[in-house]
Amino acid sequence: MSRWTFYTAPATCALATHIALHEAGADFELVKLDFAAQQQQGAAYLAINPKGRVPALVTAQGALTETPALLLFVAQSFPAAQLAPLQDAFAMARVSELLSYLASTVHVNHAHGRRASRWADAPDAQAAMRAKVPQTMAACAALLEQGLAAAAGPWALGAAYSIADAYLYTVASWLEGDGVDTAALPLLLAHRARMAQRPAVQRALAEAAAA
Amino acid sequence: MSRWTFYTAPATCALATHIALHEAGADFELVKLDFAAQQQQGAAYLAINPKGRVPALVTAQGALTETPALLLFVAQSFPAAQLAPLQDAFAMARVSELLSYLASTVHVNHAHGRRASRWADAPDAQAAMRAKVPQTMAACAALLEQGLAAAAGPWALGAAYSIADAYLYTVASWLEGDGVDTAALPLLLAHRARMAQRPAVQRALAEAAAA
Repeated sequence: MSRWTFYTAPATCALATHIALHEAGADFELVKLDFAAQQQQGAAYLAINPKGRVPALVTAQGALTETPALLLFVAQSFPAAQLAPLQDAFAMARVSELLSYLASTVHVNHAHGRRASRWADAPDAQAAMRAKVPQTMAACAALLEQGLAAAAGPWALGAAYSIADAYLYTVASWLEGDGVDTAALPLLLAHRARMAQRPAVQRALAEAAAA
Repeated sequence: MSRWTFYTAPATCALATHIALHEAGADFELVKLDFAAQQQQGAAYLAINPKGRVPALVTAQGALTETPALLLFVAQSFPAAQLAPLQDAFAMARVSELLSYLASTVHVNHAHGRRASRWADAPDAQAAMRAKVPQTMAACAALLEQGLAAAAGPWALGAAYSIADAYLYTVASWLEGDGVDTAALPLLLAHRARMAQRPAVQRALAEAAAA
């Protein structure tokens, strides 16, 4: 397998894939885009990912995008790392279900805070969207907390650590910034603390923060 | 395998899973919710799916939600139907990438037309969101059209039909209603026409429309 190139930016959902790559022991080149300089919208990057977003993973077969797809790809490419229950259709569906909820509902609600211009042009409308973020994210967090209670830990889907943990950790780290009172979310807080102990998480965070 | 129960509602994204179930030859009970009567928010359904949305698939192991997860589950549960390249990590990532884009970006943009109240309370803000839908959906459709050109057909990801076709067909059927001029999207139109010839599609559409 030729070496992969992983495109990320600090404080984005790309952290989830970054963590999974280290959990898998993948050998990859890390490229950090400068969002302040709009590098993700530059011609060089758009040739790699026409969507102009992170993450993207360039392999010998082509460039892949979308966090759930990258997480599943890492898990399937490194079966020995046991990052997903690959041979169990129902257990895999539980993993995909959480990935999809985080991507399609939770991340989307979060994005209405900083990226409201995607969905309306009027400044007042964008302000109205930002104002509702604490409410929508609190509802999502309550549902995620229920999910952790049902899974009965220590990980997002139960006894086995998986790619879903990396994504849950990434999205849960946004809650305070989105105005959610996390005091009422003990299981999410405990999960975050447990994740913060993992070497792969520490390494990904350090690499993302480095200049 | 005990019989599954599939919860759907007419003219929703649940059509994609409904098609996939028929492509797989799955034996399932179909339950249609009455959205006009807010049945998806009733206590009986919330006990099955606390998110109050369709689709949901109840199996002996529990209830599953989220279209990408259900599509992957159907494909993995019926490998003989060859609805996804299950053993090829990169080809599977291409499938997941398209599922995720349709769920997290395209369906989300579409939802700003009819479900703007999810993201802002002010009527003016909701109107501003609705007004932008033709623009955001046209941008998505252009990217999907590019994807079809790159795949070189006849299906969404190339020579092999997959669960991604069922989802692409479902979402592409919304374009005119969202104010997108489809005359400039010949590959999407051809894909829709090709899908409309499949018995599984015809059966799902007929069942969803029946009283």
